[in-house]
Amino acid sequence: MTTSALPIDHSGLEMLPMQECIARLHAARMGRLAFFSDGYPMILPINHGMDGDSVVFRTTIGSKLAAAENEMPVAYEVDGIDADRRAGWSVLVRGDARTVDNPGEVERLNHLGVWPFADAVPRTHWVRISTYEITGRKIVHQR
Amino acid sequence: MTTSALPIDHSGLEMLPMQECIARLHAARMGRLAFFSDGYPMILPINHGMDGDSVVFRTTIGSKLAAAENEMPVAYEVDGIDADRRAGWSVLVRGDARTVDNPGEVERLNHLGVWPFADAVPRTHWVRISTYEITGRKIVHQR
Repeated sequence: MTTSALPIDHSGLEMLPMQECIARLHAARMGRLAFFSDGYPMILPINHGMDGDSVVFRTTIGSKLAAAENEMPVAYEVDGIDADRRAGWSVLVRGDARTVDNPGEVERLNHLGVWPFADAVPRTHWVRISTYEITGRKIVHQR
Repeated sequence: MTTSALPIDHSGLEMLPMQECIARLHAARMGRLAFFSDGYPMILPINHGMDGDSVVFRTTIGSKLAAAENEMPVAYEVDGIDADRRAGWSVLVRGDARTVDNPGEVERLNHLGVWPFADAVPRTHWVRISTYEITGRKIVHQR
């Protein structure tokens, strides 16, 4: 039996409260972005920042920017996995990607301290995920 | 200047050879699966195994199984991120999800040693990713 007070989903995972999901997004520096490209989903690891409760990230010309310019549906996932303890949690943001074009807003985001690890090519464009849903799950082991 | 002998993509990432991508898939125990659900991409962390060069995973009734039953396009990503060194790599498999229904095949996969960390609910169904493309990227820092 689990002693958790949180609801459990159909697959036996504990559902995290929304505020905890947002706190975990704020604490994380990187995650994985999924979007459609050529009829297939694509997943790319990126570094993100939080502008209030919304996920923002820098990008350069390419498939991520194209997704944003077309305001395509995207998903963004952050997680923490502890393989030794077979433990883990994940938070999933679903929404639409939007380019940030307003110069004042760009200037503000430039001060968020988001510096992609991949820095060989300058990532001068900002994308915001206009959030539709935030959910989180955590593995619980029954003893 | 980078001293890498591997090709560099438009975003300044080193492209990993296919055999190295497959080796990294074999070495990894978990990754993230993306697929479409309700018009938005979904990303879920899962534990996978390799059956030859194809990715297989266990699941239970739910959105992942529904994606496989409908032979939907999926993406599967494994990565290794070292935040302190701002380093990282990722491998991306794109393909179609297929349920594994043949009893002999199921029996064989049952012996791969794939035990999901999330084990509160038995994950008795196997899904195979019928691969369309495998690519890998690595961050290179120019000094």
